[in-house]
Amino acid sequence: MQPHLDHFRALIAERDRFCILSHIRPDGDAYGSSLGLALSLKAFGKEVSVYSEDGLLRNYLFLPGKEMVEKTPAAPPPPEVAIIAVDTSTQERLGETFVGWNRQPDVNIDHHQSNPRFGRINLVDAESPACAQILHDLIDAAGLPCPPEAATNLYVGLMTDTGSFQYRHTSAHTFEVAASLVSRGADPTAIAQRFYQSTSVESFMLKREVLAVTKFTHTNRVAHYRLTQEMYARSGARTDEVENFLEQLQVVGSVEVAFMLEEMEGGKTRVSLRSRGRVDVNQIAASFGGGGHRLAAGIRSSLPPEELEARLLEKIGQALASHGG
Amino acid sequence: MQPHLDHFRALIAERDRFCILSHIRPDGDAYGSSLGLALSLKAFGKEVSVYSEDGLLRNYLFLPGKEMVEKTPAAPPPPEVAIIAVDTSTQERLGETFVGWNRQPDVNIDHHQSNPRFGRINLVDAESPACAQILHDLIDAAGLPCPPEAATNLYVGLMTDTGSFQYRHTSAHTFEVAASLVSRGADPTAIAQRFYQSTSVESFMLKREVLAVTKFTHTNRVAHYRLTQEMYARSGARTDEVENFLEQLQVVGSVEVAFMLEEMEGGKTRVSLRSRGRVDVNQIAASFGGGGHRLAAGIRSSLPPEELEARLLEKIGQALASHGG
Repeated sequence: MQPHLDHFRALIAERDRFCILSHIRPDGDAYGSSLGLALSLKAFGKEVSVYSEDGLLRNYLFLPGKEMVEKTPAAPPPPEVAIIAVDTSTQERLGETFVGWNRQPDVNIDHHQSNPRFGRINLVDAESPACAQILHDLIDAAGLPCPPEAATNLYVGLMTDTGSFQYRHTSAHTFEVAASLVSRGADPTAIAQRFYQSTSVESFMLKREVLAVTKFTHTNRVAHYRLTQEMYARSGARTDEVENFLEQLQVVGSVEVAFMLEEMEGGKTRVSLRSRGRVDVNQIAASFGGGGHRLAAGIRSSLPPEELEARLLEKIGQALASHGG
Repeated sequence: MQPHLDHFRALIAERDRFCILSHIRPDGDAYGSSLGLALSLKAFGKEVSVYSEDGLLRNYLFLPGKEMVEKTPAAPPPPEVAIIAVDTSTQERLGETFVGWNRQPDVNIDHHQSNPRFGRINLVDAESPACAQILHDLIDAAGLPCPPEAATNLYVGLMTDTGSFQYRHTSAHTFEVAASLVSRGADPTAIAQRFYQSTSVESFMLKREVLAVTKFTHTNRVAHYRLTQEMYARSGARTDEVENFLEQLQVVGSVEVAFMLEEMEGGKTRVSLRSRGRVDVNQIAASFGGGGHRLAAGIRSSLPPEELEARLLEKIGQALASHGG
C-alpha cells in the first residue's frame, strides 16, 4: 500500500475540496467510514461533502455529523474537487447518480475482496473486517486529526461490520483500533445502545411474524422463511427493516444454511442466502442467475415463489449431501 | 490494590496447591475466569482444582480445560491448599457445599460493586466489566504465564460479561485486554460462533412462543410476557434456556421496562424485570418482596399470576408517570 499511501498524502496536501461517497443501501460502515473521514478532513481545514444515493436512513440519525449527508446531486462536482469512494466494492455500487457523473474516483478505500481497484489511488485491504479499520490506520498514517465525532463514526463502522466483534477478520488489531477510537472519545456502550437497542415495535412485530413461519428442514440443517406483503402490512414495518432476520435463524447451532424469500412488487422474488461455511451459497445462487460469495448470496427471480422455494430446498439438500450429510 | 497484589504474588510463590471456585448458576465469566486462572497457574507448575456447585453446564463444553471443572466436593481441601474465589459477590454465592467447608477464601477476585471483601486478600475492581479483565491484568502483574487456552477462557469471560463489548464499563482498556488475549491465541470469531450461534431448535421454538405472547403497553414503554409450562412443553426447551429472552424485548427503542412472569412448579411465580435506566426496578421488586438493583431485579411470589401481572403493570405505570411519562 506504501506508494498509494504516499499518493493519498499528496492528494490531501494538494486539494482543498473533497467529496466522499459510499455504497447504495448504506450500512453502518458506509455511513461511519464516510462521516469519519469527512469529519477528520474537516478538522484539518478542508471543505468536504458527503453523498449517498439513498441520503440518510432513519436508523442512523444518531451519527455525529449526520447533517453532512446529502443525496448524491445530479450534477458532478467541479474537477478540482477530489472524489473519494469508501466501503464500496464497485463503481456501480456508488449509485446511478454517481455513474451519471462519468467520473473516476480519485481514491478508492475499501475492504471487499472483489474490489477491482477502480480508483486512481487504491487503498484496499480485504483482511480488514471493516472499511473503518482501514480509515483509522490511514488517518493516523497521513497525520490527519481524529476528533471525538470522527472516532464515534469510525467506531460505528467497526462495530457494525464486525457484528460487534464477532465476524471473521476480527483480529487483535481490530481490538487495538477499537481501543484507540474509544480513547479518542467513542462511547461503546452508548453507541451499542443506540444501534442495537432502538428497533421499532413494528420491526419487532415483523420479526414475530417471521419466526412464526420459519421452517426447519434437512434434520434442522436448513432454516428458511417466506416474507409476504401481508406480513409487512400486519406488522406495519418498512422494507428496510428486514435484512437481519436471517441472523435470528443462524443462532441455531444445527443450521448450515439459512435463506429467505421475499415477494416484491411486480411479481419478482428476492432471495437472500447465508451459509455457516460448508455449503457454498454463491454456487447455489448462481444456478438461479444470482451471485455473491461463499457465505452470503442473493437471487432475483421471476419464478413463482412456491417453485423457487421447492427448487432451493432441493439444491441445498444436494449440496449438504455432497458434504457427507 | 498494590498491597493486595503483593500479598497475592507472595501467596502464589509460597503455595503449591490451589482450588478455584466461582458462583452458583455459573456464566461465561465464572467459568472463563476460573479456567483462565487455573490454566495459567498450571502452566506455572502449580496443582490446581476448579470447583463449581453446579459442575459444568452443557453450553460451556467448548471451553479448553473444561475437564478440570468438578462439582464442589463435600469435604474441604486440606489447609495447605489456597482457596481462590473469582467473579463472586458474596461467600454464599460460592454455593452451599462451599459454605459447609466453613473456610474463608484466601483470595477474592471480583468486579461486583457490592462485594464485601470476604477474602484474606481482596482484588476487587467494580469498574471492570468482567472478572476476566481483572485476571488478565493480574496474571501479567504477577508474572504468570498466559497460554492460548488460558487466553481463550479469559476472552470468553470478557466477551460474555460485556455482552460482546456493549454493556457499561466497556472501556478502551477492555479493548486493549481483548487485543492482548487475541494476540495470545484466543480466536474471537470461533468463540463467538460457539457461544452465540449454537442455540437449540427447541430454544428457537420457545423464543417464538415468547414473542407471540409478548404485549406492549403504556404507549410501548413497557413490554412483558408470561411463560407457561405449556410453552415449555410445546417447544421442548429446557428451563435453563430462557433467561435472555428479555433482551429480545429490550431491543425495542421505546421500551423502558421489560419483564416476564414464569409459572413455576408448586404454584409460585418467578418474575424478572429489566429497566433501561429511568425506572428503578429494584424498588418495584421490593414492593413485592423481591430485590436486585436499579436495572435488573427479581421477585418470587405466591400471588396468582394474573393478579401479579396486573399489579406489576400498575406499579410500573405509576413509576413511569412519576418520571413525566
